Amino acid sequence: MSSGHDRSFFLDDEAMNEELNVLRDQIDGVDQQLVALLARRLALVAEVGEVKSRHGLPIYAPDREAAMLAKRREEATASGVPADLIEDVLRRVMRESYSSENDSGFKCVNPALRSIVVIGGAGQLGRLFVHMFRLSGYRVDVLERGDWAQADEMLADAGMVVVAVPIDTTCEVIDKLAMLPADCVLVDLTSVKSQPLAHMLAVHQGPVLGLHPMFGPDVSSLAKQVVVYCSGRDEAAYQWLLDQMRIWGVRLHSVTAEEHDEAMSLIQALRHFTSFVYGVHLSEEQADLKRLLALSSPIYRLELAMVGRLFAQDPALYADIILSSPRNVQMIRRYHQRMGEAINMLEAADRDGFIQTFHRAAEFFGDYAGQFLRESKMLLAQAHDSRHHESL
Amino acid sequence: MSSGHDRSFFLDDEAMNEELNVLRDQIDGVDQQLVALLARRLALVAEVGEVKSRHGLPIYAPDREAAMLAKRREEATASGVPADLIEDVLRRVMRESYSSENDSGFKCVNPALRSIVVIGGAGQLGRLFVHMFRLSGYRVDVLERGDWAQADEMLADAGMVVVAVPIDTTCEVIDKLAMLPADCVLVDLTSVKSQPLAHMLAVHQGPVLGLHPMFGPDVSSLAKQVVVYCSGRDEAAYQWLLDQMRIWGVRLHSVTAEEHDEAMSLIQALRHFTSFVYGVHLSEEQADLKRLLALSSPIYRLELAMVGRLFAQDPALYADIILSSPRNVQMIRRYHQRMGEAINMLEAADRDGFIQTFHRAAEFFGDYAGQFLRESKMLLAQAHDSRHHESL
Repeated sequence: MSSGHDRSFFLDDEAMNEELNVLRDQIDGVDQQLVALLARRLALVAEVGEVKSRHGLPIYAPDREAAMLAKRREEATASGVPADLIEDVLRRVMRESYSSENDSGFKCVNPALRSIVVIGGAGQLGRLFVHMFRLSGYRVDVLERGDWAQADEMLADAGMVVVAVPIDTTCEVIDKLAMLPADCVLVDLTSVKSQPLAHMLAVHQGPVLGLHPMFGPDVSSLAKQVVVYCSGRDEAAYQWLLDQMRIWGVRLHSVTAEEHDEAMSLIQALRHFTSFVYGVHLSEEQADLKRLLALSSPIYRLELAMVGRLFAQDPALYADIILSSPRNVQMIRRYHQRMGEAINMLEAADRDGFIQTFHRAAEFFGDYAGQFLRESKMLLAQAHDSRHHESL
Repeated sequence: MSSGHDRSFFLDDEAMNEELNVLRDQIDGVDQQLVALLARRLALVAEVGEVKSRHGLPIYAPDREAAMLAKRREEATASGVPADLIEDVLRRVMRESYSSENDSGFKCVNPALRSIVVIGGAGQLGRLFVHMFRLSGYRVDVLERGDWAQADEMLADAGMVVVAVPIDTTCEVIDKLAMLPADCVLVDLTSVKSQPLAHMLAVHQGPVLGLHPMFGPDVSSLAKQVVVYCSGRDEAAYQWLLDQMRIWGVRLHSVTAEEHDEAMSLIQALRHFTSFVYGVHLSEEQADLKRLLALSSPIYRLELAMVGRLFAQDPALYADIILSSPRNVQMIRRYHQRMGEAINMLEAADRDGFIQTFHRAAEFFGDYAGQFLRESKMLLAQAHDSRHHESL
């Protein structure tokens, strides 16, 4: 550009800035109304929560939620707002509402119950359940390692005992519970189910139930969270507990302990193990994490985060989950062998073999592959919105 | 409950329903205002985009965005609305705005450029770049496999040639480009960089640039997307292209081709390979996908989706990325060996060995582990909000 353009360039610049400032002030105004509207919506939903809790309705009503969202999508489309936008915004707002609905407490489904004793109730997951039971009006006692001297006394009047100790001590603790009242409900929260359930059934003649909450102790609400349960004995006697969890918003899935452990072999043991090995591999390769992050696609960024998060947590938990059954290790060995075979193909530059094997696996996934692709696109777009990681 | 309760129960029920209906009507009203506000905000931001595009400002301005969000967080907190809620909502709204900013077109940084020829411009990624160049006012020609008879004619007047063909034919296509005008910029978009760059430098004496867009062809906007670039020759001659991409909102990262390929060995080759093996493993184990999904934690659901999505895509692409360099296969072999060592520990029930190895890797991750944990918590909460997968 010649220097003769400078003056008009600056004039132009000034005009543009003024134009932008006017628009930005208007956006500021819209956003202030948006904040006020969100505050109002949160307050209204809190009132709904209060009414629901007074009447013992579940805080999460899937059909109602789906119908409401469908209506909003229509209204949005009619106003020229993308339907996915309003749905995503409302889902995010609902998350906030679910977590604040905890504040108003929950209806107590079984007010006649004697005390609930949570063994290991000072641990992370135990604490969450203690909190939820208390919010629902139950009397809860916590029994920790140092309290065994008073255990007989505490347990003598228990209406329910919940075992929430680390996985490696679960069966040992269960074996000490021979003195429970006959009608006491005995429950455990461990990530494996066959052995704890067998021990509970052996030590206690009353109602028995195995639970596996499929979420970390850091969730802000149990709404929509999955709890897997394995019936032990006398379902009628613990039906109230399932109802209570439904009121908390939990989705319950019933399977046998055997089915549970088989699925968890993949869902937990193999997953944790491969994340572990990937982390070890990155460290031994002396990977440059900073560069990997800078060059990442959103999908790899997500993968790195999912692997890296493991190493901010307790190794003993992972070791115990993986080592909880010889079946896990055998299955991991099969995984390793299959990987070896795939590497042999690569080393032989057998591109056709790779593609054939790929097609066979694709057939196995069937319609799920396309579903997963759509679902992951949405999740990756969300991950990309965030970029909370600029500071790394 | 005795039957005497029934009457009062129904009366109670009616009162509750009325109470809930009043509140739900109010929520409906709030949501209608919300839709109107979103429509207004999208319209205002579109106007900003139009002004920016007229003046050639980038659509993504990180500092401005950060400042705006910080201000909104403060305002929200003052109104009793969680700061994270307003930030998440606004980020989601901004995504919509970015994608619609495409509609107003982009300022053309280099209006004097002769035509751009995109070889493979009918492929997915090629099409996206053709679209972006045209939106920015460039004249773009597409050269496909069947057009080579006219290639000399089309290329004789090219100001820039972009090679966007599949990875396995990239170098072969580049080798045909000996006839480009001396000042023509030669660019490729392949996922590996060393070899294509070497071929481009060998065949063409003018400006050369290697690009690797780190996103799929299905993104709705290039705002915040990463493009890695490797300088080839005569940076001054293609500086305008980098500026043009910045106007599209792209984040550019410069590395050497060597550094790029080393990082991609982990980011792409190993990642694709392990997803492939995991899918093959699930199919050979005859895993019950329906049950796995029902019992999944959000984190495993995400993992399944990330693996399953692979199998909705083109195996040849993955084979070629993995096989693009012997280094990839060697590194994958090391990964396999490390996994074998870890399995030996498990088979020996060496819990302490596992924990020690874990701690070493944790040390390698350092502060990143905690950062990844926080980041993944946020992403998992988002994934949990969605649950678009009820239908599966």
